[in-house]
Amino acid sequence: MVAITNNNEIESAEPQSENILEDKTIFPDFKSGPLAKYRQLSTFCYKRMSVVLEGEEHIRLKHRIWQFMEKHPDFQHGIETPSLDRQRELANRRCQLLWEQQFYGLSDYVSAPHLSLAMAQSMFSYEFSLSVKYSLSNGMFPSTILSLGTERLAKYAAKIARNEILGAFALTEISHGTNARGMRTRASYDPKTREFIIHTPDFEAAKCWVGNLGKTCTHAIVYAQLYVPDDTYQGLNAFLVPIRSERTLLPYPGVTVGDLGEKIGLNGIDNGFVMFDQYRIPGENLLSKTGDIDEQGNYVSKIKDSRKRLGASLGSLSAGRVNICSLAYVALSKAITIATRYSACRQQFGPDDSNEEWPVIEYQSQQYRLLPHLATAYALRIFTMWIGTANVDLTFRTILGEDTSEKGMEIHAISSAAKPICTWAARDGIQECREACGGHGYLKVAGLGDLRNDNDANCTYEGENNTLIQQASNWLISLRRSSANFERDSPMGSAVFLKDMDAILGTKAEALGATEALHPDNLLKTLNWLVAYQLDATVRRFESLKKQGQNAFETRNNIQVFYAQQLSVVYAQRTIYFVFHRFVNDLPPSNEKKVLTQLLSFYGAHLVTQHIGIYYQGGYFRDNTQAEHYQQGILDLLPVLKNEAISLVDAIAPTDFILNSPLGMSDGNIYQHLQRSIVQAPGVFERPVWWRDVTYKEYLQKAKL
Amino acid sequence: MVAITNNNEIESAEPQSENILEDKTIFPDFKSGPLAKYRQLSTFCYKRMSVVLEGEEHIRLKHRIWQFMEKHPDFQHGIETPSLDRQRELANRRCQLLWEQQFYGLSDYVSAPHLSLAMAQSMFSYEFSLSVKYSLSNGMFPSTILSLGTERLAKYAAKIARNEILGAFALTEISHGTNARGMRTRASYDPKTREFIIHTPDFEAAKCWVGNLGKTCTHAIVYAQLYVPDDTYQGLNAFLVPIRSERTLLPYPGVTVGDLGEKIGLNGIDNGFVMFDQYRIPGENLLSKTGDIDEQGNYVSKIKDSRKRLGASLGSLSAGRVNICSLAYVALSKAITIATRYSACRQQFGPDDSNEEWPVIEYQSQQYRLLPHLATAYALRIFTMWIGTANVDLTFRTILGEDTSEKGMEIHAISSAAKPICTWAARDGIQECREACGGHGYLKVAGLGDLRNDNDANCTYEGENNTLIQQASNWLISLRRSSANFERDSPMGSAVFLKDMDAILGTKAEALGATEALHPDNLLKTLNWLVAYQLDATVRRFESLKKQGQNAFETRNNIQVFYAQQLSVVYAQRTIYFVFHRFVNDLPPSNEKKVLTQLLSFYGAHLVTQHIGIYYQGGYFRDNTQAEHYQQGILDLLPVLKNEAISLVDAIAPTDFILNSPLGMSDGNIYQHLQRSIVQAPGVFERPVWWRDVTYKEYLQKAKL
Repeated sequence: MVAITNNNEIESAEPQSENILEDKTIFPDFKSGPLAKYRQLSTFCYKRMSVVLEGEEHIRLKHRIWQFMEKHPDFQHGIETPSLDRQRELANRRCQLLWEQQFYGLSDYVSAPHLSLAMAQSMFSYEFSLSVKYSLSNGMFPSTILSLGTERLAKYAAKIARNEILGAFALTEISHGTNARGMRTRASYDPKTREFIIHTPDFEAAKCWVGNLGKTCTHAIVYAQLYVPDDTYQGLNAFLVPIRSERTLLPYPGVTVGDLGEKIGLNGIDNGFVMFDQYRIPGENLLSKTGDIDEQGNYVSKIKDSRKRLGASLGSLSAGRVNICSLAYVALSKAITIATRYSACRQQFGPDDSNEEWPVIEYQSQQYRLLPHLATAYALRIFTMWIGTANVDLTFRTILGEDTSEKGMEIHAISSAAKPICTWAARDGIQECREACGGHGYLKVAGLGDLRNDNDANCTYEGENNTLIQQASNWLISLRRSSANFERDSPMGSAVFLKDMDAILGTKAEALGATEALHPDNLLKTLNWLVAYQLDATVRRFESLKKQGQNAFETRNNIQVFYAQQLSVVYAQRTIYFVFHRFVNDLPPSNEKKVLTQLLSFYGAHLVTQHIGIYYQGGYFRDNTQAEHYQQGILDLLPVLKNEAISLVDAIAPTDFILNSPLGMSDGNIYQHLQRSIVQAPGVFERPVWWRDVTYKEYLQKAKL
Repeated sequence: MVAITNNNEIESAEPQSENILEDKTIFPDFKSGPLAKYRQLSTFCYKRMSVVLEGEEHIRLKHRIWQFMEKHPDFQHGIETPSLDRQRELANRRCQLLWEQQFYGLSDYVSAPHLSLAMAQSMFSYEFSLSVKYSLSNGMFPSTILSLGTERLAKYAAKIARNEILGAFALTEISHGTNARGMRTRASYDPKTREFIIHTPDFEAAKCWVGNLGKTCTHAIVYAQLYVPDDTYQGLNAFLVPIRSERTLLPYPGVTVGDLGEKIGLNGIDNGFVMFDQYRIPGENLLSKTGDIDEQGNYVSKIKDSRKRLGASLGSLSAGRVNICSLAYVALSKAITIATRYSACRQQFGPDDSNEEWPVIEYQSQQYRLLPHLATAYALRIFTMWIGTANVDLTFRTILGEDTSEKGMEIHAISSAAKPICTWAARDGIQECREACGGHGYLKVAGLGDLRNDNDANCTYEGENNTLIQQASNWLISLRRSSANFERDSPMGSAVFLKDMDAILGTKAEALGATEALHPDNLLKTLNWLVAYQLDATVRRFESLKKQGQNAFETRNNIQVFYAQQLSVVYAQRTIYFVFHRFVNDLPPSNEKKVLTQLLSFYGAHLVTQHIGIYYQGGYFRDNTQAEHYQQGILDLLPVLKNEAISLVDAIAPTDFILNSPLGMSDGNIYQHLQRSIVQAPGVFERPVWWRDVTYKEYLQKAKL
């Protein structure tokens, strides 16, 4: 997410107030309207909450970028979905415009690496295609060259820095995604010319789903199976492959490159496919940090195990997963902002003896539709800041030469479980918000459909959720089976509690009332038991299948349903709760802390009620009162948090321009905004040109076969 | 769904074999390919299964319509999403072309009313916009005129029959949907001219979301609050209102009508909004079956209670809900066909000691993603045929003058719960299928995005799911509280078992093994307990809130979460299971029955595992073995049903042309179809016209502010 550049001009920020709370460019006064009532009901300051969650620097950078977008003609919103080609044109242009501004360049990254999250978030909030394109071009492509390449590719880094070339990352093939070792694109070394010959045997081996490849990239990092003379196989390696001319953007001979076409969402990204026909590239274009061809034409590597080489070579995907958690947070936070504000303004029905209708947020059922997702949005806000910062820190320490393997392993496990959990949380939350806005939520201008369609990709790329999530259970199972030292092996703290696993397994739910059951510390204990139980059950299942004679492959597959999958899910949920819990605990007393504590309780209780079956099945709950306490605790908190809900979304909402939904504007005038959106669409009052098809039968006849 | 017409020409069907199983136009031989292996593994005949499920006549009519579509140029599929205008043009044209063919006209309806389901299903399977437009124009609009209007509007029925006018149904307003009594469009009777003056006070009272209104309708049935002289309020009434000229399609003066614009899906439907400015219509245009203006200018009605009048007036929405259950079934069955066939062809990974990769359907986790949705599709196939037929029968008996109030009430309750359950099942199933197809499932051409986006509307229209579902719990609660006679009040049989409710509440799960627990009869008992328990808990909650002094409005709202909502959900699930169970039980022995029985067990066990928390909380389960039996039963059936899965989808799949997804073709050649789809898109290999934006910086500079 860092723009590498040869100049470090940072556009001077807007004149800003010393005290961010008084900075009207960041926190403008809300216009009066139907939301004012709820803003008065809340017990805390949404501005302070915003600062508590993100910090001043993060907020200032984010708003500087949003203000630029709001003023620039190429960032203005349209009404109808533009053509596929126009969407790509806009994403490309916006991406380059942002790059030019250098809001957050390399020197900023060195001095304040954690602010890369703010840069990313500001783009995510505007639109996903732009963000993904920017990340691919200025993050993933150059960072892969830097991390896997050696000095001899430095000239390419300089070209990227001058924005002269545009890159892509080509791993997936038509018939192989998850199974990278099954890839069939081939690279043969020709010692005579010191070139690699890249070849695609058939369409099934075409690289595909490659962002930027469809229409715009000049180069791609291509993963291919390397063969050196005498047909010796050397594993999957990465190569820098020229695709199109840096001037004409026409593909080179030997390269058949095309566009994958329209997708469910993310249509600003030109995902492409490419086939190589005995295509020659210079020998120096091998990304050679994990292995190289020597003068004699032999492949040499410090890492002897080709599986480990592949692991090192695919390391750059991990940062992507951490990033996707943030993308999911942004999508969910926008959706919940829209649906919560709409629900506070939309009125329907009322007490039988009254002519007044109630805002729909006053109904218990609507509260229960929205508030769990609002609590989840807060949990993800805190969790994604934490893991994002941790990942940036890890990258830094690795560059400085520290041994970060345990930390790297744990971040890999956390992100492998959290990426599915965050993206599914966004998927389900956006959908509930769409339905909670009724018919008006089904309008394109409401924005919820685009959020859903764009977030949908998050469930698949950088590791298909259901497959990826197995990495976390694998890690936990191996720790448990090897009687690991959890303190050492879990430097991030996500599994330290498992050092007491056997003791935890012996505990039962204490006889608590609803209030005590919902105390954040008690909820953490309750979630600790859940993970311990599920890990124990999974390991026992594992051992039992092994004893039945199943081999490693079978065992791994046959522990998934009801065991390992569920283990990864509860591990991720418990980790997110754990981070949220620690964050709130560490705050000094304030009104904001008080509400965050209620939200934390609500979130924890919601997680517990999702797994009531396991709590009883595992014997932690014994009679009907335990489940009832959590349910009653939730019912008690619904009307309390309902009064805080508008200020809670105000604290995480982007500006109105960025949110861009008539149902979710900060003034709450839903019908005025809706009217404006509807009547400004082209041709809204016009008769269709094919009107005769409707009223003249003879026009219809012509159309008959 | 019946076309009313002045001629009854039925296109002669294709020459057809006497024995439908040998009719190659209906059951063509499958081409060889990767699916052949699974077809050999299955233990039953997919053709016989198809006949068992739908019956010969149904299948023949469906295929006759599909064959017409496949041959007609206006039904050929495109690649990219057409413009909004083009989508409307196509939906209009296709709708009229189908109408002209009179595959199923009025006389067919009279002689074989149940076949209206086949007509509907054939259209649903092709595309949703076309189907919804057809239903509105040829079903809902004329049937509302027939059922609520009187003889004096017969001339309009004749015009519809000659396809001279196109209608719409205008109930929802911008600020009122669910709360019909809160509508604000006004109709004032002017006794001097014997006209009604229709008036919209402001934009919030504009009729909106009205299908056909945006661009195409000539008339609309408009619901307005009726006031007769001296400002006497007479409740919401329906009026036939001319909107646009029957020749020029230009709106009449006094009518401001426009298009709602782009939606998440269903974009072939021109949903519109309309505002009336003191717009005069003839007095005869009141739909007067429930009340009329007499010669003296007074409003007279046989139904004195205005709430009951409204109920009668909105009765036509009920058939819509039954129809939507079928729409949801069709969407789910298409999605599961695509994902199951894809999963049997897509290979990824394999045993550690083998070079062969496994079809992903061989993995336990993939089986558990797909098979519950496949079982649900079968359950919905059987359930929607049953309720669709029952509803057709009810309509017939009502026309014949029978007293059908109990039956009508029960169908209302069932459909109010089943419409949400069916549409949510489709929502979740389509999403899982999308994800189960990985990246390729994210391509537009895969079809899963359109299915999701179109089905999404089903969750909202004809009663927003979360609000509508309350109707079912209200019915059950009132039956229980009034100690009803369940045999009399449940002529459809969905609640008869509750006559033994107190006995059921006293039962506990028997100590059964997995096999016995999954016996269909035992599953029905287990589900009976679930509904009884949830009804009892809800009624107890209801009484306790009343005792606390909450009024009716408050009580109704505050029993929803964890109680009444959950009650409606389990009631609908149990009803669907009950219908599935009876259907299978009634079959003579056969291979098809054997597999259906396994599928029924799997479906029932899946329902039980979704509610394990309630089973323990309510004390029906007591130790960990009970839940484990259902889980183990599911794990045991996964590999069994996996072998039947391809034949199971073959039996419910539409033809390849109708399915229209490269991932789901019956030959299973996923990559060949994918390649063809990708490379035939316009401009797939072309450089974008804005290529200089990428490679020439000066082009970018110009774009700067």
